[in-house]
Amino acid sequence: MTDHYYAVIMAGGGGTRLWPLSRQSKPKQMLALFDERSMFQTAVDRILDIFPPERIFVVTVQEQAIALQQQHTKLPSENFLIEPTARGTASVIGLAAVVLQHIDPEAIMAVLGSDHYIADEALFRQLLQTAGEAAQQGYLVTLGIEPTFPSTGFGYIQRGDPVGEFNGHQIYKVKKFKEKPSQSQAEAMIADGQHDWNSGMFIWRVDRILAEIDRQMPDLYAGLQKIRQALVNPDSQAVVDQVWGDLENQTIDYGIMENAQNVVVLPAVGLGWSDVGSWDSLFDLLDGDEHGNIVMGGEHFGLDTTCSLIYMNQPRRLIVTIGVEDLVVVDTGDVVLVCDKAQAQRVRQVVRQLRDSGKEYL
Amino acid sequence: MTDHYYAVIMAGGGGTRLWPLSRQSKPKQMLALFDERSMFQTAVDRILDIFPPERIFVVTVQEQAIALQQQHTKLPSENFLIEPTARGTASVIGLAAVVLQHIDPEAIMAVLGSDHYIADEALFRQLLQTAGEAAQQGYLVTLGIEPTFPSTGFGYIQRGDPVGEFNGHQIYKVKKFKEKPSQSQAEAMIADGQHDWNSGMFIWRVDRILAEIDRQMPDLYAGLQKIRQALVNPDSQAVVDQVWGDLENQTIDYGIMENAQNVVVLPAVGLGWSDVGSWDSLFDLLDGDEHGNIVMGGEHFGLDTTCSLIYMNQPRRLIVTIGVEDLVVVDTGDVVLVCDKAQAQRVRQVVRQLRDSGKEYL
Repeated sequence: MTDHYYAVIMAGGGGTRLWPLSRQSKPKQMLALFDERSMFQTAVDRILDIFPPERIFVVTVQEQAIALQQQHTKLPSENFLIEPTARGTASVIGLAAVVLQHIDPEAIMAVLGSDHYIADEALFRQLLQTAGEAAQQGYLVTLGIEPTFPSTGFGYIQRGDPVGEFNGHQIYKVKKFKEKPSQSQAEAMIADGQHDWNSGMFIWRVDRILAEIDRQMPDLYAGLQKIRQALVNPDSQAVVDQVWGDLENQTIDYGIMENAQNVVVLPAVGLGWSDVGSWDSLFDLLDGDEHGNIVMGGEHFGLDTTCSLIYMNQPRRLIVTIGVEDLVVVDTGDVVLVCDKAQAQRVRQVVRQLRDSGKEYL
Repeated sequence: MTDHYYAVIMAGGGGTRLWPLSRQSKPKQMLALFDERSMFQTAVDRILDIFPPERIFVVTVQEQAIALQQQHTKLPSENFLIEPTARGTASVIGLAAVVLQHIDPEAIMAVLGSDHYIADEALFRQLLQTAGEAAQQGYLVTLGIEPTFPSTGFGYIQRGDPVGEFNGHQIYKVKKFKEKPSQSQAEAMIADGQHDWNSGMFIWRVDRILAEIDRQMPDLYAGLQKIRQALVNPDSQAVVDQVWGDLENQTIDYGIMENAQNVVVLPAVGLGWSDVGSWDSLFDLLDGDEHGNIVMGGEHFGLDTTCSLIYMNQPRRLIVTIGVEDLVVVDTGDVVLVCDKAQAQRVRQVVRQLRDSGKEYL
């Protein structure tokens, strides 16, 4: 495809949902859960067939930048953009957009995650190519994930009329973006077959998204212009740091997409996508043994143990389970988590309460 | 009571039932579960009002002797008798009996455990006094524990006719010793009200028990006589070591008590006795918090956690439980045990299988 196509990997998350494995200092994108590579490394590797390293950009926070660079040394260090503090995806995407526009006014950017699992990487690349072609024609393309269950943890995208076929894939107008639903709303959306999960992956021309920011979030646009003017100077990061504090904390979905023009959705069917949002999500992604158990790292001995996840990253330690079912046991050396699989989402609550009470282990 | 009354604490057990806390090198009697004292220290402390230290003997194995001596330095070191290898309680009790007879031909010995919990220690001392008086008259006295549930893990003693009252306590002939029963047999014994648990605690005159050994286990008696003759020499342990290997591996219950004469039982009612035979037994002995949880050592954070036991002896480590009930979690640093409370007895099976497969952690 076009040489004007760039990837922007968002890698600033401090994810607490796989705690105690994920930590402030080691968020999910730095974890190696599925093979010896971290999820960030995998996120880069799977797009290298489309994007040469010099066209892959990473937006992250200062604390993680060095570690991420070390995880993928092929990426030029100047391609790591620093988000001074968390200010929502609108600002982050705006920053990447002005940087890319400065480099290449015709740039098309694919906004991608750094901590998602994708089973069919070839299909993913095909979808990125397709979305890139649609984006070149001026569409703001969202990647809609075919929902596999009535999740209340994702936003949804309602498909409208077909726009046309690109590269063998049908693209649809977006009828409506919907925030995280209730259980019954989620079930209704699954039942009507008109909805996809909002994956947070977007593909568009930088001039198009910046025009939408200019129209809908003029303050953000003004800040981004200050940054853009500073990009010719070596100390442009100082300007970013200075501008950043005044920016509105807003998501791209709410701030821009819901009222943007020419927004389309490219449904991703059979991609095998997961945001790996909690320990129990691993049961969908990894094969269990004959008892349905997933044992990751470490030594485990089980009696009458079924459908359970055992994770340990400590040497010379043994986990023994007797008479347990649907249990998650995670041992990270300083923390042992024992959690009912159905309540794995509540790990976030634990992290919040530990933080509020000034405890360590975060 | 009489100056001829001696205590013999059996402390050679290698108990695996509280694994992974109890180990080969640190059996149950060396654990501090209920206060800062080990169970062995408590076993000594609670009888000091009756037995001065010089009349308290301990039978143990070579590997544990030093550690036990260090746990109770008031006991004379020569009062620690070494059982060269596990040869059943008949040999151990016989050894203690000849040693005591050598010191004091009129000795009465109380055979006591080193790893049992007793709530009412004053009552226990009262019972020991009472049993001592009956023993002085020639009875072989067993302490029968009022059963609190139809356990299949203990032997039972069926009470026969009353023999008489001693010190305000009724003593009964033993009608029958019964080995560990089936569940239905246990329930029937509880229902008929004629049975006590066999605690393994016995009180008798040394001449009486040695006469029974002579009559029923003549080979053991012959071996014990060789040991007795060597007791005048400083190297008597060498003779014990030499004799020991040929002794029959037999329990005192089966080898002697079942067919002994003048066997009586002193029922211990309301003693609050437990052999602390598995992790779940601690729920009977320790008060839980408002959610029925028992947290021993370490730091615990629970969400929706009820009726569970959390044990940890590691510093700077946190155990988090979410959505669990009736669970035992034990963290000893090298092993994390997660076990359904109702299956806590199966810890022994784990230890056996680890041993058979040549694993460590024992």
